[in-house]
Amino acid sequence: MLYFFQPKTSEGVFHLSDDEYQHCVKVLRKKAGDEIGIFDGKGMAYQAVITSITGKLCEFEITQKTQLEPRPFYNHIAIAPTKNTDRIEWFVEKACELGVDEISFVLTDNCERNKMRTERLEKKAVSALKQSKSGFLTRINPMVKLKDFLKADHNGLKFIAVVEPDLPYLSNELKSSQKVITLIGPEGDFSKVEVTEALNQGFQKISLGKSTLRTETAGLMAAHMVNVVNEY
Amino acid sequence: MLYFFQPKTSEGVFHLSDDEYQHCVKVLRKKAGDEIGIFDGKGMAYQAVITSITGKLCEFEITQKTQLEPRPFYNHIAIAPTKNTDRIEWFVEKACELGVDEISFVLTDNCERNKMRTERLEKKAVSALKQSKSGFLTRINPMVKLKDFLKADHNGLKFIAVVEPDLPYLSNELKSSQKVITLIGPEGDFSKVEVTEALNQGFQKISLGKSTLRTETAGLMAAHMVNVVNEY
Repeated sequence: MLYFFQPKTSEGVFHLSDDEYQHCVKVLRKKAGDEIGIFDGKGMAYQAVITSITGKLCEFEITQKTQLEPRPFYNHIAIAPTKNTDRIEWFVEKACELGVDEISFVLTDNCERNKMRTERLEKKAVSALKQSKSGFLTRINPMVKLKDFLKADHNGLKFIAVVEPDLPYLSNELKSSQKVITLIGPEGDFSKVEVTEALNQGFQKISLGKSTLRTETAGLMAAHMVNVVNEY
Repeated sequence: MLYFFQPKTSEGVFHLSDDEYQHCVKVLRKKAGDEIGIFDGKGMAYQAVITSITGKLCEFEITQKTQLEPRPFYNHIAIAPTKNTDRIEWFVEKACELGVDEISFVLTDNCERNKMRTERLEKKAVSALKQSKSGFLTRINPMVKLKDFLKADHNGLKFIAVVEPDLPYLSNELKSSQKVITLIGPEGDFSKVEVTEALNQGFQKISLGKSTLRTETAGLMAAHMVNVVNEY
């Protein structure tokens, strides 16, 4: 079954958005009468039949609903964007494949970029949703200053990955079925002030291992450790 | 300290290869008298001083030797190449960052490519060696038929990642300080015959988790699980 994304199905909107129309009708050449799958990105999976394709509108009728079970844990990665856009996009694609629930971009002292657009990243999240068939869309937050991100009220376990000797290894600090936020710094690492601010907000310093990892790799491995501890 | 790669230093060759010369002299503009670091890729780290740069020859003199400690485990990923070259290169770059010891490419029934060149991949391995400062170069083997790969005499734990319900989760089957080979199939998965052949050669079927992962992502996550179990 080929799945498409339609976030508003629950509100009675039964046609595909432009991007999804392109994929369904123009690329895959689906036509009226064909069966398709629909995800709303919040855990509802629908089976549907295309009823009409008129102009740029592909309408469908839902024949079956399934509520997918959410994961018993929550995996939130807050990461400094890399200078190179490909590396950010790569990170988002892979993090979405792993089923990361939420990605936040944080502007830090040593960031090599201070602006970023998230439209393309949201498209990556949608295509990962369709490819992985998880049914849950990764939430992608626009970039905010680290200070402001830290001030927000985060519950669950809060970690900050820093390069320092003798820090606990992230996966040893995790248990299954927890809400976890992990902060990943830029190539130049977090500044001392930033680390102190994070500690003051209840974040704990951890290590991601002995290898020197690029920012996007560190983000992905932190995300994967949360999956591993949950055997997901 | 900036590191460069010179595999033959141990055999008394004290100049940089073309690529490393380019990076050292043309890109980083190092000159005679400058201190550099040298890796031989087999765990020797040298401190050296550039003695002369003549034509395309950058010679150096070693001032200090350090034997780096090898990791107590061995991480070998045997993977079906993806159709898209970028994805293979991405996998190699990231696997090298994680310190994977050996990467083999295997030609399987459902492979979307039957030829591949490894030169560019070897360059990725060298740049990862320099970036991660691990001192150990990831060994990259040319593509062979899966049948031939399976026939070879592999010791250690042998796993094949397949998409099937109720399989053991890879990281639960691992202990620290082991030699591990993990076979990763193409998008179309291994054929039944291939899986049977692998089982006959002592490979064990395992799962990499509930997400549907692309080939290159599966390969990287399998590699990372071996690191996690070794707290590396």
